[in-house]
Amino acid sequence: MTAPTRVTPISGFPELLPAERLLELHILDVVREVFELHGFTPLETRAVEPVDRLVGQGGDTDKEIYGVTRLASDDTVRDAALGLHFDLTVPFARYVLENAGRLAFPFRRYQIQKVWRGERPQEGRFREFTQADIDVVDVGELAPHFEAEMPLVIAEVFRRLPLGEFRIQVNNRKIPEGFYLGIGLTDVAGTLRIVDKLDKVGPDKVTGMLVAAGATPEQADRALALASIRSVDLSFVDRVRALGVEHPTLDEGLDALAAVIAVGMDEAPGVLVADLRVARGLDYYTGTVYETQLVGDEAWGSVCSGGRYDSLASDGRTSYPGVGISIGLTRLVHLLIAKRGLTASRSTPAAVLVAVVDEESRTASRHVASALRGRGIPCEVAPAASRFGKQIRYADRRGIPFVWFPGVGGGGDQVKDIRSGEQVDADALTWQCPPADLRPAVVTPQP
Amino acid sequence: MTAPTRVTPISGFPELLPAERLLELHILDVVREVFELHGFTPLETRAVEPVDRLVGQGGDTDKEIYGVTRLASDDTVRDAALGLHFDLTVPFARYVLENAGRLAFPFRRYQIQKVWRGERPQEGRFREFTQADIDVVDVGELAPHFEAEMPLVIAEVFRRLPLGEFRIQVNNRKIPEGFYLGIGLTDVAGTLRIVDKLDKVGPDKVTGMLVAAGATPEQADRALALASIRSVDLSFVDRVRALGVEHPTLDEGLDALAAVIAVGMDEAPGVLVADLRVARGLDYYTGTVYETQLVGDEAWGSVCSGGRYDSLASDGRTSYPGVGISIGLTRLVHLLIAKRGLTASRSTPAAVLVAVVDEESRTASRHVASALRGRGIPCEVAPAASRFGKQIRYADRRGIPFVWFPGVGGGGDQVKDIRSGEQVDADALTWQCPPADLRPAVVTPQP
Repeated sequence: MTAPTRVTPISGFPELLPAERLLELHILDVVREVFELHGFTPLETRAVEPVDRLVGQGGDTDKEIYGVTRLASDDTVRDAALGLHFDLTVPFARYVLENAGRLAFPFRRYQIQKVWRGERPQEGRFREFTQADIDVVDVGELAPHFEAEMPLVIAEVFRRLPLGEFRIQVNNRKIPEGFYLGIGLTDVAGTLRIVDKLDKVGPDKVTGMLVAAGATPEQADRALALASIRSVDLSFVDRVRALGVEHPTLDEGLDALAAVIAVGMDEAPGVLVADLRVARGLDYYTGTVYETQLVGDEAWGSVCSGGRYDSLASDGRTSYPGVGISIGLTRLVHLLIAKRGLTASRSTPAAVLVAVVDEESRTASRHVASALRGRGIPCEVAPAASRFGKQIRYADRRGIPFVWFPGVGGGGDQVKDIRSGEQVDADALTWQCPPADLRPAVVTPQP
Repeated sequence: MTAPTRVTPISGFPELLPAERLLELHILDVVREVFELHGFTPLETRAVEPVDRLVGQGGDTDKEIYGVTRLASDDTVRDAALGLHFDLTVPFARYVLENAGRLAFPFRRYQIQKVWRGERPQEGRFREFTQADIDVVDVGELAPHFEAEMPLVIAEVFRRLPLGEFRIQVNNRKIPEGFYLGIGLTDVAGTLRIVDKLDKVGPDKVTGMLVAAGATPEQADRALALASIRSVDLSFVDRVRALGVEHPTLDEGLDALAAVIAVGMDEAPGVLVADLRVARGLDYYTGTVYETQLVGDEAWGSVCSGGRYDSLASDGRTSYPGVGISIGLTRLVHLLIAKRGLTASRSTPAAVLVAVVDEESRTASRHVASALRGRGIPCEVAPAASRFGKQIRYADRRGIPFVWFPGVGGGGDQVKDIRSGEQVDADALTWQCPPADLRPAVVTPQP
C-alpha cells in the first residue's frame, strides 16, 4: 500500500525506537515476573466501556474521555455510546461485577494495558500510556494485611529495575480525617484538597486558603503540623500524639498505618515512609494511600500510586472492598530514557548474526541458525553474502555482539565477538544456555 | 467508586476468565519467544492514526473504522481527526516513513497489539482483537529469501503451540497473473476476486461468474484447473506446465514459489503447501501470499496470513518493499477455548499457597513466601488463619498444586501436593529452580 507522504507525530501519543522499546519491554517483563511471583493472576479487559460507566468518576476525568464511534454505521448493528477507558480500575470493577460468580475471592489480579486521557500533553504526561496495576478485592470485608502487601510488591519490582533509590510514601486517610474532626474542621474533603497543594504552593498559601475556607489560624497551623510529619519507622505515632488531638477515627488510622509501616520495616527497610501529607486526589480511597517518588527526580511526580477503597464496586446487594496500586509505566520509562539517558545495548533481540559465505551456502547458514535457536539463542542470518567486513558492520550497527562464520568448504565454524575482536573456534564455545550477554543489557550513560 | 448496577458484555469485545487468560498468555509468550529467536525486534505503535491515513486501504475497511474524539474538547488543544488502527501494517508503514533515518535496513520487527474493526460480530470474528505480526522491510529492493523465511517462523510458532496439525498454504500472485494473461484474461484482479470465492460457492458458480464477466467457457475451465493444483513438494510446477500456458510472469512466479517450497521441504517438511487457489483479498500483495489452516478446523478460516508487497510505504522518492505475516491471535485462542475446550490447569500463576497457622505467625509465613519467590517460585500467603482444611480448599479452588505448612512452634515445615495428597518434609524438597508443574499447564479435554 502506498501511504500518503506527510508523516507527523501526534502530540501525547509517544512511540519508541527499537532500543528504547527493548528497554521498556525489559521493564514490563520485570513488573510481570514480580506480580506473578506474588500470585496475581493476569487479566485484560476490553479497551472500551459504555460512556455512562466512565463519566462521573471524580476529578477532571469527564472532559478527558475519548469517545469511540464507527465512522460509518449501518442499520443492522446498534452501537452503544462507547469510550476508551482512562484507567484500569473502572474496567476491573465492572469485570468483577460481571464475573463475580466465576471468580474466587479474595481475587488477586494484575493488569498491564494502555489507557487514554485527553489531557494537555506535557513532560511526563501523555494521552496514551501504559499502566501496570495490582488489586486485591474481596466480598463484603477485606483483611487489612493486604494494605501492607501492596507496597512490598512494588518495592520488589522497583528494586529489580534500574531506578536507583525510591521512596514509597504511605498515609491513611483516617488520620487526617480523625485529626481534622478532632480540631473542629468538619469539611474533611475540602481541607484535604487544600493541604494536598502543599508541595505546589507552599505552607503560607495553604494557611491562607484554609483560613479563607473558614478555619481559624490555629486550626490551619495544626493541620499543617500534621502534614509535616514523616518517618521511616513508627515514631510518627508519638509525633501525632504530641499534637494533642483525640478522635476515634484518628486512633484507627494510626493503628492501621503503624501496621503497614511495621511490615515494611521488616521486609523492605528504609523504603516505606509514613508521610502524613499524602492524600491522593480521588475521593474513593477510604484507608491506606500510596505515592512513590524516585530520589533525585521527585519533581517528575509520583510514578506509582493507589490505595484502599471500601467499595470498588457494588451491585446494590454486595459490595467489593479492595486495595490496589498502579505503576505509571510510560511515565517511568520516559523518565529513564529522556531524563536519565538509559537505553538497551542493542536494537534487536538477536545475539548472533550468522554470516553467509556465498548465496549457494545460505542453507548451511540457515541450519546453523536453527541449531542456535534450538539452544535458545536469538539470531538471524545475514541478509546478503556480501564481504565479511560488511556483514560485521551489519551486526555492529544493530549492536549484535557475535558473528558466526560457518566453515563452508573446509575448516570449522568460527565465532567472533565484535566488541573485543576476539575470534574462537565454535567447537570451543560453551554456550550451554543463553549467557547473560545474549539478552540486551540496560545501558546507563557514562558520567 | 460505586459503579452502576447494570453490567452487560459488549458484542465483539471479548474478555477472558483468569484460566483462559493464562492460556492466552502462554500462547503470547511462545509467539514472542520464537519471534525474538528469529531476531525480530519488538515494536509498539500508538493505537490511533489520522483518519485520512486509515481510509482507502481497500476492501470494506473504511466503514469499519472507529473514530476517536474527546467528549469535551477545549480551545487550547486542536484535535486532529483520529481513528483506531484496524491492522498493524498501516501503522508500521507510517512508523517506517517517520523513523526511516533512525532504523537499520533491512528492518525486522514484530508487533503484538490490539486492533479494532467495526464489522458485524460473529463466531471467530471480533471488533477488538489481537494480532501478532512480523515483517521485514528494506529500502528499494528486498531479497527474495525473506519470502521463504516468514512461513518457517510461523511453522516454528505453531509447532510449539497445542494446535495439532496445520498447513501453511503458499502461492505467488505472479502465477495466476501470468497464467490469466497467458490465456487471454486481461482483468487479472477481477478474475482473482472471482476464483477466490471457490471455497465458498464451488466450481460451478465460479465458472458461471467468470463467463458472466466475459471469459469463454474454456478460459474459465483453465483458470479453475490452475486453482485446483496443490502439492507439498515441487510437483506443482510440472502440473502447471502441463496446462500448456506460456507467459514470462508465470515463469517468474513458478520459480519464486518453487524456491519458497524448497526451503520449506528442508526446514519444515509437510507443513508448507503450494496451493494455487490462495489469492488473499488485499490488492497490495505482489508476490508470495500465505494462509494458514488448522487441520480439522478449516472452516474456522485462516488463522495466519500475509504476503509480499513491493511498496509497503513510500515517501515519493524512496519506496520500502516488504514481506509480512500476521497471526490472528484472538481468533486462534477462541478456537482453542470455545471449539477445542483447552484451558490452563489453574486460575493463578501461584504454584504454592503458604498456609498461616495463626495471625500472630503471619510474619513467618510471609518469610517463607519471600524465600520461595527468591527461588523463582510464584506463591501467595493464605488470606486468613482459618482451619487447614479451609486453606487447602482455597488452594484447590484455584488449582494451586502445593500447600506449604510452616513449622510454627516446633517441627519442621511440611509441603502437601494436594493433587496426590502426598505430604513431605520441606527439607526433603529438591526444587532447585521452578520444575515444570510450577507453571500452569495447558489442559486438553478428556475424550
